[in-house]
Amino acid sequence: MPNPDSQTVIARCRELAAVSEMPHGTFRTFLSPAMKRCYEVVAEWMKNSGLAVRIDAAGNLRGVRAGIEPGKRTFVMGSHLDTVRDAGAFDGILGVVMAIALTGGFADSRLPFDIEVIGFSEEEGVRFGVPFIGSRALVGLLDEQTLQRSDSVGVTIAQAIRNFGLDPAHLSNAAVRNPLGFLEFHIEQGPVLEDAGEAVGIVESIAGQSHATVRFIGCANHAGTTPMRLRRDALTAAAEWMVAVERRAQSIPALVATTGKIDAQPGVSNVIAAEVTISLDIRHAADDVRAGAYHELRAAGAEIAEKRGLQLLWGDSLSLNTVRMDPLLTEALQAASPAGVRRMVSGAGHDAMILAPHIPSAMLFLRTPGGISHHPAENVGPEDVDLALQIGHRFIEDMSVRSPLS
Amino acid sequence: MPNPDSQTVIARCRELAAVSEMPHGTFRTFLSPAMKRCYEVVAEWMKNSGLAVRIDAAGNLRGVRAGIEPGKRTFVMGSHLDTVRDAGAFDGILGVVMAIALTGGFADSRLPFDIEVIGFSEEEGVRFGVPFIGSRALVGLLDEQTLQRSDSVGVTIAQAIRNFGLDPAHLSNAAVRNPLGFLEFHIEQGPVLEDAGEAVGIVESIAGQSHATVRFIGCANHAGTTPMRLRRDALTAAAEWMVAVERRAQSIPALVATTGKIDAQPGVSNVIAAEVTISLDIRHAADDVRAGAYHELRAAGAEIAEKRGLQLLWGDSLSLNTVRMDPLLTEALQAASPAGVRRMVSGAGHDAMILAPHIPSAMLFLRTPGGISHHPAENVGPEDVDLALQIGHRFIEDMSVRSPLS
Repeated sequence: MPNPDSQTVIARCRELAAVSEMPHGTFRTFLSPAMKRCYEVVAEWMKNSGLAVRIDAAGNLRGVRAGIEPGKRTFVMGSHLDTVRDAGAFDGILGVVMAIALTGGFADSRLPFDIEVIGFSEEEGVRFGVPFIGSRALVGLLDEQTLQRSDSVGVTIAQAIRNFGLDPAHLSNAAVRNPLGFLEFHIEQGPVLEDAGEAVGIVESIAGQSHATVRFIGCANHAGTTPMRLRRDALTAAAEWMVAVERRAQSIPALVATTGKIDAQPGVSNVIAAEVTISLDIRHAADDVRAGAYHELRAAGAEIAEKRGLQLLWGDSLSLNTVRMDPLLTEALQAASPAGVRRMVSGAGHDAMILAPHIPSAMLFLRTPGGISHHPAENVGPEDVDLALQIGHRFIEDMSVRSPLS
Repeated sequence: MPNPDSQTVIARCRELAAVSEMPHGTFRTFLSPAMKRCYEVVAEWMKNSGLAVRIDAAGNLRGVRAGIEPGKRTFVMGSHLDTVRDAGAFDGILGVVMAIALTGGFADSRLPFDIEVIGFSEEEGVRFGVPFIGSRALVGLLDEQTLQRSDSVGVTIAQAIRNFGLDPAHLSNAAVRNPLGFLEFHIEQGPVLEDAGEAVGIVESIAGQSHATVRFIGCANHAGTTPMRLRRDALTAAAEWMVAVERRAQSIPALVATTGKIDAQPGVSNVIAAEVTISLDIRHAADDVRAGAYHELRAAGAEIAEKRGLQLLWGDSLSLNTVRMDPLLTEALQAASPAGVRRMVSGAGHDAMILAPHIPSAMLFLRTPGGISHHPAENVGPEDVDLALQIGHRFIEDMSVRSPLS
């Protein structure tokens, strides 16, 4: 029988799933009205756990529980509160809600460090096509160029921040003072733990990823009167390239490549498509393998465009190398776990990936039923949450008595 | 030096191109606000040419010039006023504006029949995914099932008619009483006349076309954690099928097949697409060739879906057999033309295709520079318009003195 904390954690995640931009299904983007309602709910939970709540200039929701010497050292826990479209209830949210629950376990103790729980404002990259807006702000990587990126209706990140009642000029207030470390709980979002019959896993590294926006430019013309041989069809060119992407990815072990988003213009049935834009997302634990595949896929696109008399516009939109978690914190997480908990690579990007080069970071994965994520059927087991909470509690306890860290 | 009429015709087409739902570029859909403004402009031109103007219950704009015995017989001329997205200035519009100009040439004559100029409300199929709404109403083919089709925001055709201030219960008022025949002027929208160095061509038949809405249903999942072999990616399945469609079409002489519209859901870069919907448009002058290819492409889609563990939902949305123009009217058009004007097949569908089985119909094509249509660069030459107006004038004159028709 799971303890009441894990039941509460799951119930809270389910409650937040209803706070959405969609009438049915879960969808919350960076600083949207749904995000504002989400913050109200989570801030209330933070306050009930005795945390002092604020929202930083990047829109991250933050709650601090002061230790013996407030402001001296801060240990950070959390994850993100935004979601993809038609999302599940646990991706990101679980890590925030578990962190809040963990602070409750130290209600009667004075710890030798502050604990800060952060609900990151943006991790998925949905609204602006660039992910990790929240965690990047924490480590000073939200630069002026990024702030000027626009969403689909032309609102920039800077403007979205202002529209939310915040001031991008105050972004330095997102930094953590004297960070001791960062711990993120997250669902695996893949099939590995379930296949092995294991509840949790310790993340050793997060696979690097490259994203691109790939545009084929051909020529619009009439679908009924333009002979096949005279066409410069941007959509069939894009189709040929997407098939090539899939085949190449299938041929390289552990590589994943995804074309998930497509837009064809003018996009009507009786007109040959003039312009097609596709997203590319490619990941691998070895940076050189990923870079090599990326280069090949770009060359394949250029070849297809050339052969068909089209133009290829290739836009690199993000490239992140594989990031290792902090060895000491990871060792501490292992020590706080039952014997035999595995180390693993994360195929998904996480806020810990952004923080790790700047703040010692560790990460614990929870088993994901069916490996299903980014989907309404996404789930997590109460017993698994229970175990992860126990590990988290022991991890903080251990840390509070260990001299090199405190 | 072209005569003033052809200059006016071209200037009027260019003027209407600015009446649009887009800030830059031409786009007018069925009974949209832009269509209302377009009607105001065209109705004014009709009135200036002495036509009595009304809008029928299918939204067709109609202007009648009474003959010697008003209401006895009516000769109809016209084309459509709606456009594709980012359209040219002449597709459809030219036929309406030329018809108005032709009525002006008989200002001093009493003809033995009424002339009715019709600007059809819908031919392109953009808003409701079904074309020819205007001309179908004229011959009683706008049935209740079609009226209940919805646009992308859930408005039905019947509702759109009501929103425009018209009443779908009065659709019978769209019929032509005692029709003598129908003549449509239209740009070729293809390269044949230009390749041959000819200004105009007489359409003998309009190639049949089949349209389908093809949906691949897979499963959404995380782009970073789902191994390639475990994916059920609806977009790469759709891509494989689009490549197959193109290859098959290239292998059958004179067949054209187009996948011009695509939608992928959820449509974000880090999620494998769960559902992709594509339009198919396939045309050929021989009905059996078209039907055979359509069947093959459907089988290819089913095979790709099966192989990948996906579901295929195939929706037939329109099938029109090849339509022959009226032999007598076509002969009359040939007689009114200079020697050597060619007969040809139209690869594009036109309102005459819908009317021909019910009203004797004829059609004259005008050369299209570069074969470019459904594109802002669409054009027509003033000398060609001039010649077509001369042919039209002689055609009506001939008809007014020929006993079997009057």
